[in-house]
Amino acid sequence: MHDSLIAYIKKYSTTPLKEGDDELIKNTFLAKRIRKKQFLLQEGEVCKYTAFIVKGAMRQYSVDEKGTEHIVRLTIENWWAVDRESFTMLTPSVYNIDAWEDTDALLVTRADFLSNLGGMPALNEMTRKMDENHASALQKRVIASISFSAEKRYEDFARQYPEFIQRFPQHIIASYLGITKETLSRIRHQLVKK
Amino acid sequence: MHDSLIAYIKKYSTTPLKEGDDELIKNTFLAKRIRKKQFLLQEGEVCKYTAFIVKGAMRQYSVDEKGTEHIVRLTIENWWAVDRESFTMLTPSVYNIDAWEDTDALLVTRADFLSNLGGMPALNEMTRKMDENHASALQKRVIASISFSAEKRYEDFARQYPEFIQRFPQHIIASYLGITKETLSRIRHQLVKK
Repeated sequence: MHDSLIAYIKKYSTTPLKEGDDELIKNTFLAKRIRKKQFLLQEGEVCKYTAFIVKGAMRQYSVDEKGTEHIVRLTIENWWAVDRESFTMLTPSVYNIDAWEDTDALLVTRADFLSNLGGMPALNEMTRKMDENHASALQKRVIASISFSAEKRYEDFARQYPEFIQRFPQHIIASYLGITKETLSRIRHQLVKK
Repeated sequence: MHDSLIAYIKKYSTTPLKEGDDELIKNTFLAKRIRKKQFLLQEGEVCKYTAFIVKGAMRQYSVDEKGTEHIVRLTIENWWAVDRESFTMLTPSVYNIDAWEDTDALLVTRADFLSNLGGMPALNEMTRKMDENHASALQKRVIASISFSAEKRYEDFARQYPEFIQRFPQHIIASYLGITKETLSRIRHQLVKK
């Protein structure tokens, strides 16, 4: 199960892993099966783990006072599920992260990550790149939300993340894009006609 | 001029600066006056500098095919102006960064930053914290854009960044929030009545 994480690290780092690094990674990330509808994180808790998704699909969302879920982030294989702010600052999270499909994940706590892997150059480089990619993806989402029409937001999302369209139902995608189910349905009908 | 940057670094880092670090920082960050309406970055260029704002105000925005500006980021004293993706990946930027007021900034290139300051623990800690704060602010803005009403977005913004409301005119704030000038004007009138 750790092989896909090792492959991921190698892909995102130009610094090679040293002898023994593989073993240290395997001993630090704990394999865990999270069944569909189980939570990795519930609002009000501190986000104890960063999870690398080996297989499955998870969603991160907040719930407003009316009980409506707002999808902040979707994750599938080779993505990470975590509330970074809560994980880093040890503050209670406003988000929930649950499994949308049965999920195999590799979990690590912040303390274990820092003490066992903090001095590993390849992993630091990977973390740095992940942070940069994450920030630039968020930045793009902000610009899309303030300047693009709902149509363009959906088209861009479908082009950039076709696998998400396959894995998650329309109401989840609509929530992620900040539009209603009805608007998304209308957009999809129009695209089919094009 | 570099004193405010040194103070900023000390504020955001628990690691103390070592002897000589001050001098190295002063020699690496170059002081530059950017007059109102001058550009730090124009779309299509690679973002060569990260700028620490000592005094003044800048805005980062994209321009759509209709010529409308969309404000992505506003920066004043003790904030950083940069297109991080372009700066890090050396890719052409889709953004413009210009001075909204006459601005005194401290500029650093990526190469100078890495070669002169890359091994300075206090600065690495500060960078790490900035990245985390930046990502969590973007995350909050995404959740606000998909789940909050225009009223709530404005109220949260005004509470969190009252100085921005003073420094930038309403059409800039409206663009930042992804709402029309008319909607913002209506919201402000209602708030006054409350």
